[in-house]
Amino acid sequence: MTSLDSATKAGNEVAGLVVGVLGGTGDQGRGLAYRLALAGQQVIIGSRSAERAEAAAAEIGHGVRGADNAACAAGSDIVIVAVPWDGHGETLAGLRAELAGKIVVDCVNPLGFDKQGAYALVPEEGSAAQQAAALLPDSRVTAAFHHLSAVLLQDPAVERIDTDVMVLGEDRAATELVQALASRIPGMRGVFAGRLRNAHQVESLVANLISVNRRYKAHAGLRITDV
Amino acid sequence: MTSLDSATKAGNEVAGLVVGVLGGTGDQGRGLAYRLALAGQQVIIGSRSAERAEAAAAEIGHGVRGADNAACAAGSDIVIVAVPWDGHGETLAGLRAELAGKIVVDCVNPLGFDKQGAYALVPEEGSAAQQAAALLPDSRVTAAFHHLSAVLLQDPAVERIDTDVMVLGEDRAATELVQALASRIPGMRGVFAGRLRNAHQVESLVANLISVNRRYKAHAGLRITDV
Repeated sequence: MTSLDSATKAGNEVAGLVVGVLGGTGDQGRGLAYRLALAGQQVIIGSRSAERAEAAAAEIGHGVRGADNAACAAGSDIVIVAVPWDGHGETLAGLRAELAGKIVVDCVNPLGFDKQGAYALVPEEGSAAQQAAALLPDSRVTAAFHHLSAVLLQDPAVERIDTDVMVLGEDRAATELVQALASRIPGMRGVFAGRLRNAHQVESLVANLISVNRRYKAHAGLRITDV
Repeated sequence: MTSLDSATKAGNEVAGLVVGVLGGTGDQGRGLAYRLALAGQQVIIGSRSAERAEAAAAEIGHGVRGADNAACAAGSDIVIVAVPWDGHGETLAGLRAELAGKIVVDCVNPLGFDKQGAYALVPEEGSAAQQAAALLPDSRVTAAFHHLSAVLLQDPAVERIDTDVMVLGEDRAATELVQALASRIPGMRGVFAGRLRNAHQVESLVANLISVNRRYKAHAGLRITDV
């Protein structure tokens, strides 16, 4: 099978899958849930409180459902992890059974903030994605969706999000499905960008994009050229 | 002065400056020297051996001169550090006097390689750029030019290099001059992307671009969108 065939196959396959968004009541999670639902994907957002998840889902509309994190994970095929870094490990450790066999997409950026702006935190495992992989040995862990502006994602007046999505992981079929998922959102392309051991720099590059946004009053994204 | 005025001023000012390239006989250094000379910049490439530097300069043409590293540093206004990571600290420590008062542009990517490809090394100081800043307290240290393909830079058939150059540093006038320098090369834009404490992820993102190049048979670069 050529690479193009396998991308087409992933594109067809992903359309029928249910996407869960853990931390789906936060800005990034809401924004992703909205864009994916708008693209035709079935979406369940998860939160510690089922009531808050259901309320957020009702606000988003487009068929998005809400559930507590465990039910969200259990009911989804692909689960995006969009929880705050503080709480990332604890949340995932508690969902190991529900996430077994699923494709997990970590999009968490471990950052610190002080008067000079944002800076990278260094997780003990190397990156948030590697922490997820360590805590979820029965899941197919990937990393993606790090560099998206929550403002643009949530703005219904924005029709296209002009950015590529770097997708990382060890499992080729899983990364291709996540690439296909990203590519469903108008303007986005999912691009394979390496193994999880190279996730830290992708996660922490958000600190640089925050500097760009501050200097240029922008909502910066990234395009990979010559691909 | 508005930000646009100050960018125009930097653009005018940089054209008259001499650019040195330490490690100018390597692929990245040669490529940068060639592109900057082609853009009208006076360029001196430096090497441990003056003879090798002169031979490489003659091959590049376009008025590029060659010298040993110390003479290259002493004779230049802006000095690009394009030496291998192995030797980076030693080379810079030996040039502290020659580099005093100069704008130093570190473009070194500390990477390791094994059977699975490239991965990020973590310098004790946090990044190559921070190591340069620690060793060169009398210089204005910036970081830039990390994500360029040496193949494209050196190929005379390539007229435009379709990529942005992330420029990092603490000194605003220095980063603006380096942005202006990058912007002289057709297709490139110099974009401010944060302080040196956020250089590590910019340097090590090259490991991801190597994965992109391998998967897509590309010479990948990066564009920052919405800027």
